[in-house]
Amino acid sequence: MIVEMVEEARSMLVLEEVTVEDLVDVGSDKKGGGRRGDDTKEAAAGRVDSEECLAPPANFAMVDYGIYRSGFPEPANFGYLDSLGLRTIVYLCPEPYPEANADYVRSRGIRLCQFGIDGSKEPFVKISKDTMMHALRVLLDVRNHPILIHCKRGKHRTGCLVGCFRKLQSWCLASVFEEYQRHAAAKTRVSDLRFIEAFDISSMSQCLLGAIYRYHGLGSRARRLGYHENSS
Amino acid sequence: MIVEMVEEARSMLVLEEVTVEDLVDVGSDKKGGGRRGDDTKEAAAGRVDSEECLAPPANFAMVDYGIYRSGFPEPANFGYLDSLGLRTIVYLCPEPYPEANADYVRSRGIRLCQFGIDGSKEPFVKISKDTMMHALRVLLDVRNHPILIHCKRGKHRTGCLVGCFRKLQSWCLASVFEEYQRHAAAKTRVSDLRFIEAFDISSMSQCLLGAIYRYHGLGSRARRLGYHENSS
Repeated sequence: MIVEMVEEARSMLVLEEVTVEDLVDVGSDKKGGGRRGDDTKEAAAGRVDSEECLAPPANFAMVDYGIYRSGFPEPANFGYLDSLGLRTIVYLCPEPYPEANADYVRSRGIRLCQFGIDGSKEPFVKISKDTMMHALRVLLDVRNHPILIHCKRGKHRTGCLVGCFRKLQSWCLASVFEEYQRHAAAKTRVSDLRFIEAFDISSMSQCLLGAIYRYHGLGSRARRLGYHENSS
Repeated sequence: MIVEMVEEARSMLVLEEVTVEDLVDVGSDKKGGGRRGDDTKEAAAGRVDSEECLAPPANFAMVDYGIYRSGFPEPANFGYLDSLGLRTIVYLCPEPYPEANADYVRSRGIRLCQFGIDGSKEPFVKISKDTMMHALRVLLDVRNHPILIHCKRGKHRTGCLVGCFRKLQSWCLASVFEEYQRHAAAKTRVSDLRFIEAFDISSMSQCLLGAIYRYHGLGSRARRLGYHENSS
């Protein structure tokens, strides 16, 4: 009961970026997740000024438990990213990661998974089904969470990956498109919507089941990873 | 170790709307959260057709762990809402809940918290600070999670509440406004942005701390709920 209460209170505190230790004045050497101890103490006391505020990356949103999306994170956003405790970043551009970002992920022990998808405009023929499936597999593996997906603007490549993820979650296409358009706004590309619509999740579902079966060590019950066989 | 693995696998499965029981063929009488057992089995096998897809409410998004936002849910969205396992709905319109929605929340044991904020256009003087603080308190209490906030379109009233919540999370105003505008799009109201900017979170922070202290039963250390005293 008490454990449950503390857990609930911790969840509540996460919303405020305040740690239990901050509140009950327990001294501790914080490791991870407590980097902003001093700032949060002031925030908790209502002394929030503009210099202490957190700036999420542009076009930032939470996709699902442990999954976030955004445009390209700048150094000004690193403080906010710290608060997410990221384990993985899925980076969808072919360009090398800028030095500041590479330093950041290295210093935080974040795994960088790059899937270089060309960002050129229509015709949008450069996203291969296999690349998208590989990115989805990284995204779906909870051992990689919390995970941030980003490209340059968080509109097209990120929108396509999230769109495919929503199809796996059995969302109606209308809802998938609405979410895509909320992030792409005036930059919506019909070719992206076509890509999402055409993306065949059935082979991906089998791949997923295979991963889950193997994860549970169910041996003979495991389905094979079907997506290489099925992709044409 | 095995518990951790099962927990992780459960989280993974949530993403796919598949229960562990579906996968390992363990027969069970499901209570809550497993209402779509047959559908999800088919989805897992890759036999997803358009009739089985899930339709989130319009303008739906995840705000944070256990917190969702949307426009007015229609009966077509109830299947999706089931998948969220909602415990609470914060409804921000003064109009009575339609019968279908009232039946839905009753049948699912969802607590409905209505804060009747007038949806009239500018001048937007009808949101009282106290109403917003009461709504925020419901939102912040993890015992109410998972929670859905909605008004009519999920743009203005919902956008204001989420905006105030983001200020409590120490988000920069620029990021708060970007999120508001993503949902309001062409219907963005400067008066809403002004409301969010003017909303004083310092008294709310004290209120929150008070709630947390009391929740932990810290008696004499408890701060008083300051927001009634401080609101003018």
